[in-house]
Amino acid sequence: MRAAVIHAPHDLRIDDIADQPMGPNDVRVRIGAGGICGSDLHYYHHGGFGTVRIQTPMVLGHEIAGTVLACGSAVASVQPGDKVAVNPSLPCGACRYCLEGRSNHCLDMRFYGSAMRNPHVHGGFREELVCTETRAVVLPPGVSVNEAAFAEPLSVCLHAASQAGPLLGKRVLVTGTGPIGALLIMVARQAGAREIVATDLLDQPLAKAREVGADRTVNIRTEPDGLTRYGNDKGYFDVVFEASGAAPALAAALAAARPGATLVQVGIGGDATPPVPLNVVVAKEITVRGTFRFHQEFAWAVDFIANRRIDVRPLLTEIVPLAEAVRGFDLASDRSKAMKVLLAF
Amino acid sequence: MRAAVIHAPHDLRIDDIADQPMGPNDVRVRIGAGGICGSDLHYYHHGGFGTVRIQTPMVLGHEIAGTVLACGSAVASVQPGDKVAVNPSLPCGACRYCLEGRSNHCLDMRFYGSAMRNPHVHGGFREELVCTETRAVVLPPGVSVNEAAFAEPLSVCLHAASQAGPLLGKRVLVTGTGPIGALLIMVARQAGAREIVATDLLDQPLAKAREVGADRTVNIRTEPDGLTRYGNDKGYFDVVFEASGAAPALAAALAAARPGATLVQVGIGGDATPPVPLNVVVAKEITVRGTFRFHQEFAWAVDFIANRRIDVRPLLTEIVPLAEAVRGFDLASDRSKAMKVLLAF
Amino acid sequence: MRAAVIHAPHDLRIDDIADQPMGPNDVRVRIGAGGICGSDLHYYHHGGFGTVRIQTPMVLGHEIAGTVLACGSAVASVQPGDKVAVNPSLPCGACRYCLEGRSNHCLDMRFYGSAMRNPHVHGGFREELVCTETRAVVLPPGVSVNEAAFAEPLSVCLHAASQAGPLLGKRVLVTGTGPIGALLIMVARQAGAREIVATDLLDQPLAKAREVGADRTVNIRTEPDGLTRYGNDKGYFDVVFEASGAAPALAAALAAARPGATLVQVGIGGDATPPVPLNVVVAKEITVRGTFRFHQEFAWAVDFIANRRIDVRPLLTEIVPLAEAVRGFDLASDRSKAMKVLLAF
Amino acid sequence: MRAAVIHAPHDLRIDDIADQPMGPNDVRVRIGAGGICGSDLHYYHHGGFGTVRIQTPMVLGHEIAGTVLACGSAVASVQPGDKVAVNPSLPCGACRYCLEGRSNHCLDMRFYGSAMRNPHVHGGFREELVCTETRAVVLPPGVSVNEAAFAEPLSVCLHAASQAGPLLGKRVLVTGTGPIGALLIMVARQAGAREIVATDLLDQPLAKAREVGADRTVNIRTEPDGLTRYGNDKGYFDVVFEASGAAPALAAALAAARPGATLVQVGIGGDATPPVPLNVVVAKEITVRGTFRFHQEFAWAVDFIANRRIDVRPLLTEIVPLAEAVRGFDLASDRSKAMKVLLAF
Repeated sequence: MRAAVIHAPHDLRIDDIADQPMGPNDVRVRIGAGGICGSDLHYYHHGGFGTVRIQTPMVLGHEIAGTVLACGSAVASVQPGDKVAVNPSLPCGACRYCLEGRSNHCLDMRFYGSAMRNPHVHGGFREELVCTETRAVVLPPGVSVNEAAFAEPLSVCLHAASQAGPLLGKRVLVTGTGPIGALLIMVARQAGAREIVATDLLDQPLAKAREVGADRTVNIRTEPDGLTRYGNDKGYFDVVFEASGAAPALAAALAAARPGATLVQVGIGGDATPPVPLNVVVAKEITVRGTFRFHQEFAWAVDFIANRRIDVRPLLTEIVPLAEAVRGFDLASDRSKAMKVLLAF
Repeated sequence: MRAAVIHAPHDLRIDDIADQPMGPNDVRVRIGAGGICGSDLHYYHHGGFGTVRIQTPMVLGHEIAGTVLACGSAVASVQPGDKVAVNPSLPCGACRYCLEGRSNHCLDMRFYGSAMRNPHVHGGFREELVCTETRAVVLPPGVSVNEAAFAEPLSVCLHAASQAGPLLGKRVLVTGTGPIGALLIMVARQAGAREIVATDLLDQPLAKAREVGADRTVNIRTEPDGLTRYGNDKGYFDVVFEASGAAPALAAALAAARPGATLVQVGIGGDATPPVPLNVVVAKEITVRGTFRFHQEFAWAVDFIANRRIDVRPLLTEIVPLAEAVRGFDLASDRSKAMKVLLAF
Repeated sequence: MRAAVIHAPHDLRIDDIADQPMGPNDVRVRIGAGGICGSDLHYYHHGGFGTVRIQTPMVLGHEIAGTVLACGSAVASVQPGDKVAVNPSLPCGACRYCLEGRSNHCLDMRFYGSAMRNPHVHGGFREELVCTETRAVVLPPGVSVNEAAFAEPLSVCLHAASQAGPLLGKRVLVTGTGPIGALLIMVARQAGAREIVATDLLDQPLAKAREVGADRTVNIRTEPDGLTRYGNDKGYFDVVFEASGAAPALAAALAAARPGATLVQVGIGGDATPPVPLNVVVAKEITVRGTFRFHQEFAWAVDFIANRRIDVRPLLTEIVPLAEAVRGFDLASDRSKAMKVLLAF
Repeated sequence: MRAAVIHAPHDLRIDDIADQPMGPNDVRVRIGAGGICGSDLHYYHHGGFGTVRIQTPMVLGHEIAGTVLACGSAVASVQPGDKVAVNPSLPCGACRYCLEGRSNHCLDMRFYGSAMRNPHVHGGFREELVCTETRAVVLPPGVSVNEAAFAEPLSVCLHAASQAGPLLGKRVLVTGTGPIGALLIMVARQAGAREIVATDLLDQPLAKAREVGADRTVNIRTEPDGLTRYGNDKGYFDVVFEASGAAPALAAALAAARPGATLVQVGIGGDATPPVPLNVVVAKEITVRGTFRFHQEFAWAVDFIANRRIDVRPLLTEIVPLAEAVRGFDLASDRSKAMKVLLAF
């Protein structure tokens, strides 16, 4: 079958790869849609990030959904013909972090399309995928695989929101309105935020941010002092989701956050060790908390997408055939044109 | 009366200053002891820190205790002859932060010996001080003013501990074992920590750290890999108190912290915006939380000192007469010789 | 002017009462709508609840909104002609609870229409009310006073939700679907609950519960085992809002709650000291937490009503003229016919 | 070998029981000491509690320590000759609660000396016990098995303390000063409580309470109004540990607790469904939280006992030979004479 395989920076190929054997607890999924994620783009442009680098060619993709073709003999919860979102995260269930309920920190995690382990765990940008039953979350009737492909990034955002504590009645700032920032806006809205302000350097994603729930947006490039007033009387926002990974955004957000606020750092940018105004963190007793992947939130995400309490459709830019994956990756890299690009298989 | 007044970097003078008038809610205190704090040393060496700079000469000192000489007509809780610890913090009690229970972030704070306001609020390194009754916390019989002068830095550490959540059963790392680090060790012990490891660049404070409760100490200068093993399997410590303000200490602490750990940043160093390994904060979902001064903890501190559940005496290096204040400041600046230096008045 | 005054159980009169004088910080409000609350009904039927009993005739009413007629000379935030929701809660701002941010526990609270103090604090079921500026929260254009009269009970529910911790992704049970239960369903939905089940003894309020967001309802009278299945494997619900005040509902809810769940007790019923299955609380480590009135949530409530993220209109049963207040109280007492009854003035 | 076996209420026999086979992951322990617990006494006097009743004869005992006699071939962390505390709790490690970090709520728990399962899980009041390696926690040199037998009840108390949130600086009330209450006092002291008041109906355990750390005690039988003053201004205590299981104690504790306080219900008494003043829980927004057994705290308890930061020796009343177990149980039942009675094997 065909798959989108990264060989080296800017060397993404549609390779023919071998079929996978099936065990009694496995299901075979015809992949229908795969979202191109920021980490896929890091592999594509840079071969990885930080210390995580592709050592050998790897199938990309971890935002995937499809239709079940066949089930192993011990499979009970899934049937052929079911549409499923595929959970790319498979913790071991036995290490100390798994037994603490922190399975996103599993010491033996198998996460699709990730070069953290060696040999790498191949991803889901492929025509068919064999996975363990527990990864396949059945969709209710009427949910398209295109929407279901958002379950993974939405899980990331639901987990990030959980790191922030209750959002009901809170004033929320989202810095960076790519797909993750946009989904965070939708999650914050869904979680009862009282007011949501969002920033970015580009007008196009900010327009989308307003469309999906931001009360106000600030283009930091054209309006560099746009957050300044929020810093009066020691600050305004109760919660910040920093989704840009840019040091200036972090600094501006800390200035606009009120004493005792929580800033959730969602992903990082090119600089893994940026300068951070710790004096502000100290003087305002701000909580800066990292967020990493997700766990139980994948099931929530499928629910929220299925009942459209979170409607991801405004974020879908284009569906690109696998054969044109390179064009898809290039489109997804252009933030002025694309929010979320899906591959079709 | 005489007072220790900072005029400019390295220009600390014993000036004759005017007496203060007394109102009905005030008490007059004969200052008996005043601890030299790190922020006093910043004013002494650098004229301030960050954007906080002395504009006009200012009496230093905010770790003070003494004996009540006289009480205003409306004073009820204090009597002449009482020994008192003087709380240098006086929030307004009316701003939004005060009414939220976050009075350490008061918008109209009057904190002794601080150049944050203009005109500055003079401090307590003076022979006599007139203060509002609410600042004067009566000591039980048998507590010396020398011990009571530790109430303020101990309050800072109790507040820092509160920022960390429960410490019972926790593994704790303290980076930097000056007076604040040493008191943090005592507080962590008092709060039920299961294990305490402390680091510094000097052997002398580390010896003191062991004396007051650290289970193990690491001299990072002579044993630069001394924390490395704690980074195995994603980390070891549940809680870190970062009391050095040094970027390498912060980086090493983050590496040694386990997923979900809390790092409390206690004060900052010369670099207000140091590089921070945010990738580690994100990947291990670490909570980095600032801590700033204290509030209700001042009363706790007096209690803990009075009943010697926290015995501060091992931290007292020398009592220096006010006339020799410059020698006292120089001694306090030499971490190889001094832990806490008190002035006597 | 006329007002609805409770003299004794079942002795509610439309009395002529004196005008109130106005100070410089006061505003005079023409009351437009007043919601009849459960506590109003307790005064009407029983003369009070627990140890709180009317000693002298008292104007009822604390869910009120109206139009500003005049403003004192020092009033800045409100203008004649403004529509306002009136906050019935006025904490002292000076006691220890106020300074802790727990002003709903103020030692000197003045709450409209409450017999907790003596002399009682008269309420707002009157044609005109003079109140301090801080009580008057201006409504944006387009919001009716009828909707704004829901700000108070909605505040109660927002505060109750805050007592439960984050609701995002949670499974929520609401027992008792009177006006408070129904608003709790709307708040839980707004706060991102994943699933909401509601119970009551009557079909009519359960139908309304489904209309405003419950995923499933159970009539405990006709389907007494309707919650039993949720008790399998130690329980199902993460959060319970117990809004019936009935001991059997509390017992059933504890059985259906999962280990570690939080049950928020919202108000109480006729028995102030009901039997509680503490063995279940212990064995499943359930958190039972009381909730009492509200504080900062009043402003949130006005926002949520104004932008209709919470649309209270389906809960409005009938608007009854003040002259027919007794009929209004009788109607509000009949849960098979009424959800929320408003008085018009 | 001989074991203490409960057959029916007041029918405790020293039976000869069969040896247990050993697997590769097992260790054989020569039991040295076994503490008689309140639940052992419930089986002895009443045949169980609530719905948990002995159906068939069961070896009692779950507070046990001893010396390792032999190790299975796969055992790595324990050696013959080691002294060990034996953890009576063995969660499955696979159910949803185990994978959430709530293994004390395991759906397939095997807890020694408990009739919750059928067939019952026999306990440790026996000369030799074969258990899986993970249950055997090695003691450092110098710790006696008599002290180590307190690891289990101390674990219960450490877990109860964790349910209360941070205790540093808190005012704590402990109602009921049997072995659990006394250990709770020691834990609260260890966790940094500022003040500890304890109540009971008997002078003897109250004297012991003062010995192990209570600042003040109240005999509720002889001084029934002894807690009344703490109810002034809505209450005094931040945290209550209710360890008596008596409804009047719970009511008095709620009256003495301040708004926002946490009451941890530690075990229950004869009435599984006592009357609870929910009106007070609601009006003061008190958190009532159950606590059930323990998990990670067993290892902490062994540490605290071993380094004597918690010195359990004052609680040891008498060591009774197994042959006199009935006398030991009768002694342990007399709260005027006994705190903790150990059996020797």
